[in-house]
Amino acid sequence: MTNEVAIKSSHHVVIVGGGFGGLHAAMSLGNVDGVRVTLIDKRNFHLFQPLLYQVATGGLSPADISSPLRSILNKQRNVKVLMGQVKDIDPVQKKISLSKSEITYDSLIVATGVSHHYFGNDQWAETAPGLKTVEDALEMRRRIFMAFEAAEKEDDIEKRRAWLTFVVVGGGPTGVELAGAIAELAYSTLKKDFRSIDTAEAKVVLVEGLDRVLPPYSPDLSAKAEESLVKLGVKVQTKALVTNIADHVVTIRQGDQIETLPARTILWAAGVKASPVGKILADHTGVELDRVGRVMVESDLSIKNYPDIFVIGDLANFRKPDGASLAGVAPVATQEGKYVADLISKRLVGGSLPAFEYNDAGSLSVIGRHSAVADIGKVKLSGFFAWLIWVFVHIYYLIEFDNKLVVFIQWTWSYFTRKRGARLITGDESLGQIGVDDRGDYFVVPRIKVKTPA
Amino acid sequence: MTNEVAIKSSHHVVIVGGGFGGLHAAMSLGNVDGVRVTLIDKRNFHLFQPLLYQVATGGLSPADISSPLRSILNKQRNVKVLMGQVKDIDPVQKKISLSKSEITYDSLIVATGVSHHYFGNDQWAETAPGLKTVEDALEMRRRIFMAFEAAEKEDDIEKRRAWLTFVVVGGGPTGVELAGAIAELAYSTLKKDFRSIDTAEAKVVLVEGLDRVLPPYSPDLSAKAEESLVKLGVKVQTKALVTNIADHVVTIRQGDQIETLPARTILWAAGVKASPVGKILADHTGVELDRVGRVMVESDLSIKNYPDIFVIGDLANFRKPDGASLAGVAPVATQEGKYVADLISKRLVGGSLPAFEYNDAGSLSVIGRHSAVADIGKVKLSGFFAWLIWVFVHIYYLIEFDNKLVVFIQWTWSYFTRKRGARLITGDESLGQIGVDDRGDYFVVPRIKVKTPA
Repeated sequence: MTNEVAIKSSHHVVIVGGGFGGLHAAMSLGNVDGVRVTLIDKRNFHLFQPLLYQVATGGLSPADISSPLRSILNKQRNVKVLMGQVKDIDPVQKKISLSKSEITYDSLIVATGVSHHYFGNDQWAETAPGLKTVEDALEMRRRIFMAFEAAEKEDDIEKRRAWLTFVVVGGGPTGVELAGAIAELAYSTLKKDFRSIDTAEAKVVLVEGLDRVLPPYSPDLSAKAEESLVKLGVKVQTKALVTNIADHVVTIRQGDQIETLPARTILWAAGVKASPVGKILADHTGVELDRVGRVMVESDLSIKNYPDIFVIGDLANFRKPDGASLAGVAPVATQEGKYVADLISKRLVGGSLPAFEYNDAGSLSVIGRHSAVADIGKVKLSGFFAWLIWVFVHIYYLIEFDNKLVVFIQWTWSYFTRKRGARLITGDESLGQIGVDDRGDYFVVPRIKVKTPA
Repeated sequence: MTNEVAIKSSHHVVIVGGGFGGLHAAMSLGNVDGVRVTLIDKRNFHLFQPLLYQVATGGLSPADISSPLRSILNKQRNVKVLMGQVKDIDPVQKKISLSKSEITYDSLIVATGVSHHYFGNDQWAETAPGLKTVEDALEMRRRIFMAFEAAEKEDDIEKRRAWLTFVVVGGGPTGVELAGAIAELAYSTLKKDFRSIDTAEAKVVLVEGLDRVLPPYSPDLSAKAEESLVKLGVKVQTKALVTNIADHVVTIRQGDQIETLPARTILWAAGVKASPVGKILADHTGVELDRVGRVMVESDLSIKNYPDIFVIGDLANFRKPDGASLAGVAPVATQEGKYVADLISKRLVGGSLPAFEYNDAGSLSVIGRHSAVADIGKVKLSGFFAWLIWVFVHIYYLIEFDNKLVVFIQWTWSYFTRKRGARLITGDESLGQIGVDDRGDYFVVPRIKVKTPA
């Protein structure tokens, strides 16, 4: 009475990670004869990460941008989904270890991505959370909306100002999107909701180390993006570094100038570091890692000396013929996943494929309610039309149909009303995450880490 | 530059609690001359509790059934919303204390509701969570879906069976709705999603102490409800008591029979206990409390000897002329909130109101995907038509327009596809709430309570 399919003697592909790379590899292998697939992920859902900042700013719910992996893959009878975490990889015996079991593979695809990186200042993590998981987004959401609640109750002008100061560290797409969304909240969405404070007095600061925001884009688009941000009310500080975060004060160095800015809400969108699975791979195969721990891959996305092990997505460092590395974005991961799936299928019938080549359809980044920048080959767009493209591209790529519909409705609704429906402050009351204190004072208590029994 | 309104010398109504009672009182007082209102709630949102079981079973997201209190009330310029928790009430000086501030009132409306009650077995709370808050619902959701994940990885037949056994304690509306939804998940929604287990082998047990489910309804509707549940695959045990919960085993006594049932997922929908604010009131005013701590109110919903203090909603025990108490349901709370608001307005111009009278429009309870029971005065309905009424009534009463639309779409979608989009397993990884363990073993680690600094 089980659903087990008779797939005994087939080629077993194990995929670790259900993000864009891993999921698209699994989907591409779903209907291939002679192949069975096991997709392993820590979570039971695929997360559409490009829209995670909207969860962090109360525009969408986690489920709107997530789909259960089992549900996406349930028609592909040769794919098995397993919740678990990789502890070790044995490339000689061709097996991986989970906490309490082992799985052998014929081909292995590693797509475990990256997390945030504090450049050696891990103590900043509690004060300045990053944005990679659903929990990260809910934590950001909690802090952003709690800050306004606390300001409403604060009589001291200086303290109130600190509650109303939001610092976003990092001027890449995530930082730009976060800063734009917070500015919109403060200067428009929440304006009529408070009685003691004027939310428009809030200060939103975006700090970027390089000389312009959105460094991967062309300089004129970066300039347009900065212009849009400033118009929204964001203070953009480029060539600026955060040198310290402590006691609700951010220290920012810009050239010779050092500024200390009291701010209760600091959001981290600056650095990435590779998933620890990269290190596990390197330890056993000798493959080279780059500065942030990403795996250097060959031209077919396999790793040196191990043609049956592939690394794709954000965890892979793939150098183009011109020496530049591909960016850690969803389209790259998706194309890599499909390529590796094709390559494995081809190999099974004795064939092969030319080296992987990324087909760059362009980059898109949104700034506030109805502005975006688009870098589509020779076409560079900014403003409302770029935003429309952004909306349709993102809705098009959302995995499940009901998500598309729900997101489209939420967006249409908030476009016309400027409302944001998902502004809930939630958390675990026992951890003090919910601000029941009437001055919001213990909202800044760090989340206490508790070891889980082995 | 603040939004403070000039409302100095007006009658100050303080409302504690933003559920159905408190919110409707605030809305009714929103446009009354000479009145200013402060609405205090621990949370920043109103929760549409009747649909919370849908969050617990992955049908809806928390934000779909929640609305920010500030957003609902932002057009009512005489209403101020404050996040906070009541610590004390002084009925003589007419003031309430929050953690760090005091607020004086002219009229006080207490609407802080109830939480769950384990009849003296508080140690069951970790193993058998109840359903009152958004966090409760996410915890239930996590446990329900983790149980299927763990079963998928379990080789031992007995252990697997325990993972696939779901016990719902309490046959009131919440218990019936939960049991129906889990049965639907197991026997329909998830059927194609797993490879090693057949989810249809799951066992869903509903335990009720009285002789029928939905005891407040008429006996024939209770019978219809039980019939529908059985058809969905739920094992209904009436006149049955849970006498122990320990080590993943539930002990159920039914007459002389004692059954010990291994079950990893136990959900509590049995008893309620009043919010501690009831006790605070009793200590200072001598007002009588009932067996579960609810406040006995007068015929105008005020408390004895204190005509300026009102208790409404689930926290109030209002006896009808026939001696029976009103049930703790949303329509009662809503009508009580409106009545008290009207009474306060009338009193300000020297008038009064006759005693409160509940206008019972009927009761509705849903069972599974397209069945419900409706008890509308002399009209008793069951089946699909009752379900349609249930759908429209609930959508009608959802507070904000975008919530109505989103919920309607999610329901239409899942009605035709049987899919449930919000099946995310989330939680705090540092607490072991996320099941990264490949056998799901530490998913049952109790959430460790950490004291928040004062």
